[in-house]
Amino acid sequence: MKAQSIKNILEQKVISPSAKVNGWVRSIRKSKAFSFVVLNDGSCFDNLQIIVPDSLSNYEEMTKCLIGSSFGFTGELVASQGKGQSVEMQAKELVIYGKTDESYPLQKKGTSLEFLREIAHLRPRTNTMAAVFRLRHALAQATHEFFDKNGFYYINTPIVTASDCEGAGEMFRVSTLDLNDVPKLKNGEVDYSKDYFGKESYLAVSGQLEAECFASGLGKVYTFGPTFRSENSHTARHLSEFWMVEPEVAFADLDDVADLGSDYIKFMIEKAMERCPSELAFFEKFYEKGLQEKLKNVLSGGLTKVSYTDAIDILQKSNQKFEFPVKWGVDLQTEHERYLCEKHFNGPVAVMDYPRDIKAFYMRQNDDGKTVRAMDILVPGVGELIGGSQREERYDVLSSRMDEMGLSKDEYWWYLDLRKHGTVPHSGFGLGFERALMYISGMSNIRDVIAFPRTSGSVEF
Amino acid sequence: MKAQSIKNILEQKVISPSAKVNGWVRSIRKSKAFSFVVLNDGSCFDNLQIIVPDSLSNYEEMTKCLIGSSFGFTGELVASQGKGQSVEMQAKELVIYGKTDESYPLQKKGTSLEFLREIAHLRPRTNTMAAVFRLRHALAQATHEFFDKNGFYYINTPIVTASDCEGAGEMFRVSTLDLNDVPKLKNGEVDYSKDYFGKESYLAVSGQLEAECFASGLGKVYTFGPTFRSENSHTARHLSEFWMVEPEVAFADLDDVADLGSDYIKFMIEKAMERCPSELAFFEKFYEKGLQEKLKNVLSGGLTKVSYTDAIDILQKSNQKFEFPVKWGVDLQTEHERYLCEKHFNGPVAVMDYPRDIKAFYMRQNDDGKTVRAMDILVPGVGELIGGSQREERYDVLSSRMDEMGLSKDEYWWYLDLRKHGTVPHSGFGLGFERALMYISGMSNIRDVIAFPRTSGSVEF
Repeated sequence: MKAQSIKNILEQKVISPSAKVNGWVRSIRKSKAFSFVVLNDGSCFDNLQIIVPDSLSNYEEMTKCLIGSSFGFTGELVASQGKGQSVEMQAKELVIYGKTDESYPLQKKGTSLEFLREIAHLRPRTNTMAAVFRLRHALAQATHEFFDKNGFYYINTPIVTASDCEGAGEMFRVSTLDLNDVPKLKNGEVDYSKDYFGKESYLAVSGQLEAECFASGLGKVYTFGPTFRSENSHTARHLSEFWMVEPEVAFADLDDVADLGSDYIKFMIEKAMERCPSELAFFEKFYEKGLQEKLKNVLSGGLTKVSYTDAIDILQKSNQKFEFPVKWGVDLQTEHERYLCEKHFNGPVAVMDYPRDIKAFYMRQNDDGKTVRAMDILVPGVGELIGGSQREERYDVLSSRMDEMGLSKDEYWWYLDLRKHGTVPHSGFGLGFERALMYISGMSNIRDVIAFPRTSGSVEF
Repeated sequence: MKAQSIKNILEQKVISPSAKVNGWVRSIRKSKAFSFVVLNDGSCFDNLQIIVPDSLSNYEEMTKCLIGSSFGFTGELVASQGKGQSVEMQAKELVIYGKTDESYPLQKKGTSLEFLREIAHLRPRTNTMAAVFRLRHALAQATHEFFDKNGFYYINTPIVTASDCEGAGEMFRVSTLDLNDVPKLKNGEVDYSKDYFGKESYLAVSGQLEAECFASGLGKVYTFGPTFRSENSHTARHLSEFWMVEPEVAFADLDDVADLGSDYIKFMIEKAMERCPSELAFFEKFYEKGLQEKLKNVLSGGLTKVSYTDAIDILQKSNQKFEFPVKWGVDLQTEHERYLCEKHFNGPVAVMDYPRDIKAFYMRQNDDGKTVRAMDILVPGVGELIGGSQREERYDVLSSRMDEMGLSKDEYWWYLDLRKHGTVPHSGFGLGFERALMYISGMSNIRDVIAFPRTSGSVEF
């Protein structure tokens, strides 16, 4: 007999009353002539209760097993006598796959999230982490579904790259050079021609520039892949390795992609509510009071758009004490972003048209000579969730901006080349997938929404 | 008016006869009082024909534009007079977004695939490459759909890692150390404690070991992400950076995942036929005669399973001249794999139970003391498409095998720990996504099925 998932059993998708089920023990409670075993298999939030008669040959052995042991049961599904569940199983047969001992760290309840990070290999067995990763799955599926139904093509931009999209320099080197014997040129500099790729190479901080090449052929594309920053921020919102979703749209302007971003966030929320109601109720109870109300409000509300210039004005008139002073020309800090979306607008807000001097070379310049067509979408509890821009499609304007900023046109020859041949207005954005997950789950530390977090000094597992 | 994709227009999903369309010029043909413009926007294989009257104000300017220019048209959709298309547009208005000049490398037909690799930033505009990447999209969507509907959860295993899954050592180092001034310990060795992650770190060659942790909590999981090998193979089937799909299933044995692999391949083929009929017809015409017949045969056939021992027997009795001699105990070479699936079985074949001495430490040992529960699925034209195994779930057996092979148990403490607490039989495999795409498209070089290929000495774009 093929085993069924507890999800299918509880949703009564199983036709036969006879079924087989496998999972890990959440509790064993002895009664007179039988025991109650509560089993979880990770397929859904809820457990299956199994009534095990003492007539089974390995009944005695079973009663000595601890929480976390792995069992397989064959039996009959019957309407449940107890409350809170539709169906339970009366066991006919038991296989004990694996036991555990007193050293199993998940036997007791109330383990802290910090402690669970130290046993990240076991934490998918906990209610919280399993709920996070089922929700993560639902949001990833929603991402592909959303872009697919809107005519986008999924592309995989390179992870190893020789160019630095942001010009920020916070990149990891990728190399096969022997660090005990680094090859040098006559002038004493490192001879990267001896390295695997023949030149200095890094982990990509974004797939945007390459996505632009594909938008200039396929029209609408998106990436969904890992990106890397070697910055030393030890905050609850930064990782060295994180997943990003980057749509890029030919013939679209900044307003188009701001609306696209808003629709995409709403679609993720809809799918989360549809597929993970138990998980959201759990997060609401233990991690963010009002979570579901917050999400419903996003669905029913529109996206507020405000210019950077107006946003600065709002912040200056707010009478708030900010750590970083506010004036036109400075970049917004998390405290400013959170004030805007949490206190002033009370919902997602797109800040548009930032000062050109604080933004990347590829952003389209406005006619005012001071701002560029950049936008950030800020959400309560997280701050920046999306950062995007209309790209400079005019060859001459891009070329002089690169000169101004001292960027090598030899290195970006192909990026400039896109503007020589059939250039089109186009726009795109990047969404930090873990931040979206934090926002929708209410989890407050980014280390708790990715399988094995990588940060400065931490590469365990 | 919002622009429509040519795909929607040709599929007549557009309700109004008035429409707007954007794209790149494939040809301009002048007639008496009008011109025919053939426009492609990448949304589908087919182009839209547009009849442009000379009454438009920028008509003269348009007629001087070259292939590859980007135009936007507003006009009326009418039933087409010509053959081969259902609908065409009579233009009312034209926007010329971007022109090009004689240096545009895609003006002439018949550019070679080799040449296109040198202009990988422009090749998504060609018929072949756009078809490849639309098919790639369809297969990626099919991947997520297949695993989702079968109850799997998508997980993202880490890209940067300190452990080496295969023990093969062909890994890229990830570091922020200054190569001009590598920090050294007193004994002269590199001091990796000064590196970003505090220890020697690499790009992952697989997400399997981490996926096993998640299968031991969520039950059924899969990865779909980039993996890396620093090997120096300059073949048409190897990349330094490629995408892999790795399902991992708790309570499953090797036969279960061989069947899963076969079902997954079939599902991808079904979806390819459903979503990309024009692309497959094009590949059949220009790249692989008999492609669609081959794919249909896979759909209607089962998966042949043969033991490694029997496969060796078949090869020895084949009277073929192999470059690498065949005897029990050697690994199968591509020539052997291709003989088995192309000549002997004429279809996908799973070779199972390989000699333990040529396989990885984590594979489950058979009772014969000589073989392990490993399997490869081989397909015609490609060779190995899937490699998988049942994992050794018995703590003692795994532990002694690691000792035998000299692996550090301190480094793999967490992997061993899974076997201490509620261990379960489990199995999984890895599928090279680009190889699947080669197989289904008939493209014969792996560099032509990934956006920007990375190989030894090549990190352009």
